[in-house]
Amino acid sequence: MIISKKDISSFDRIYRLKLINSLSGLKPANLIGSKSKDGISNLAIFSSVVHLGSDPALLGFILRPRTVERHTYQNIIDHDYYTINHVHPSFVKQAHLTSAKWEKSEFEECNLTEEYLAEFPVPFVAESKIKIGLKFAEKVDLKINDTALIIGYIEFIKFTDPDILLEDGDLDYDKANSVAVSGLNTYHEASEILKIAYARPIKDNSI
Amino acid sequence: MIISKKDISSFDRIYRLKLINSLSGLKPANLIGSKSKDGISNLAIFSSVVHLGSDPALLGFILRPRTVERHTYQNIIDHDYYTINHVHPSFVKQAHLTSAKWEKSEFEECNLTEEYLAEFPVPFVAESKIKIGLKFAEKVDLKINDTALIIGYIEFIKFTDPDILLEDGDLDYDKANSVAVSGLNTYHEASEILKIAYARPIKDNSI
Repeated sequence: MIISKKDISSFDRIYRLKLINSLSGLKPANLIGSKSKDGISNLAIFSSVVHLGSDPALLGFILRPRTVERHTYQNIIDHDYYTINHVHPSFVKQAHLTSAKWEKSEFEECNLTEEYLAEFPVPFVAESKIKIGLKFAEKVDLKINDTALIIGYIEFIKFTDPDILLEDGDLDYDKANSVAVSGLNTYHEASEILKIAYARPIKDNSI
Repeated sequence: MIISKKDISSFDRIYRLKLINSLSGLKPANLIGSKSKDGISNLAIFSSVVHLGSDPALLGFILRPRTVERHTYQNIIDHDYYTINHVHPSFVKQAHLTSAKWEKSEFEECNLTEEYLAEFPVPFVAESKIKIGLKFAEKVDLKINDTALIIGYIEFIKFTDPDILLEDGDLDYDKANSVAVSGLNTYHEASEILKIAYARPIKDNSI
């Protein structure tokens, strides 16, 4: 089944939104925690967190400025800090509901628990097994469609279960049980099928 | 278990590389296909493909210029076109091996099959169930660590099994069985746990 550029333009807006959002593959489901100037906590689900580099340790995410996500960005600018928290099956529904518009803090409205750790001025998600504290680094505007890449330095990591961190530095995702998302609203559990050594050319092609 | 900024800087380089690459969550595993000026096909695995927008339909990926990935970028510039192909369990080892340095085309060296579709001048991966053809749009330099975000327009989509595309525009990932990757070299299968309607505030908090 083939879909051309012309087909894509001709699709109904919602159908295209669902199809194109589904195309990139399985995406990480992450909750970004932040706090407004007035002290109101904010929590929003993102599927666009991306690894940018390990030294310095950097993560990015894509911001669509015309949505509820703008609270997240304003808060990041105001406080300079934000948190990224993995989502697990036990609270995937609550996590998804943060994408709606709420009057009060999404923590309260969606039944998730604020957690403050070390000197971090913004909330982590207590229910999350992998919590990352970041300091805002840079906003890179993507003029092609008025989105932006928000880049932050990783300053703090907490694993609620120390067994998640393996001896070699990898994380055990079967233990963490972090969920993936496809499209806008379909969630998936993952199970490890293969851990391979660093790839080197092989001579006999016996893969 | 808490890891501070100071801990991160003090870690051995490879340990830090593995840990930080593992942090963002489950990442999509995609093979990017391209072709050099001399007509040599190239295939490289990326875990950083990210959805940027649906109208126009745009995907991005992060390029680390000092690695084997530079062939991919040079080819994209030369031909203006490239392909993104999902990875499935049946060829996950071959897909991973494309990250090594090879003398000939990775298609040949890693036992994957080139497929040419419609007018696209660059190869798709025949074994992949979800194939996307893109036209280069823009390179956005990320000066913070000398990486770049490569942006492309989605111009062509092929699903080998039409059942993968659901009636509403979502994709059925249980059918597609596309794999996710964590860190640098651990691969995962996913299974759907929940498809939720568009999130709306609820009045009674009975999530």
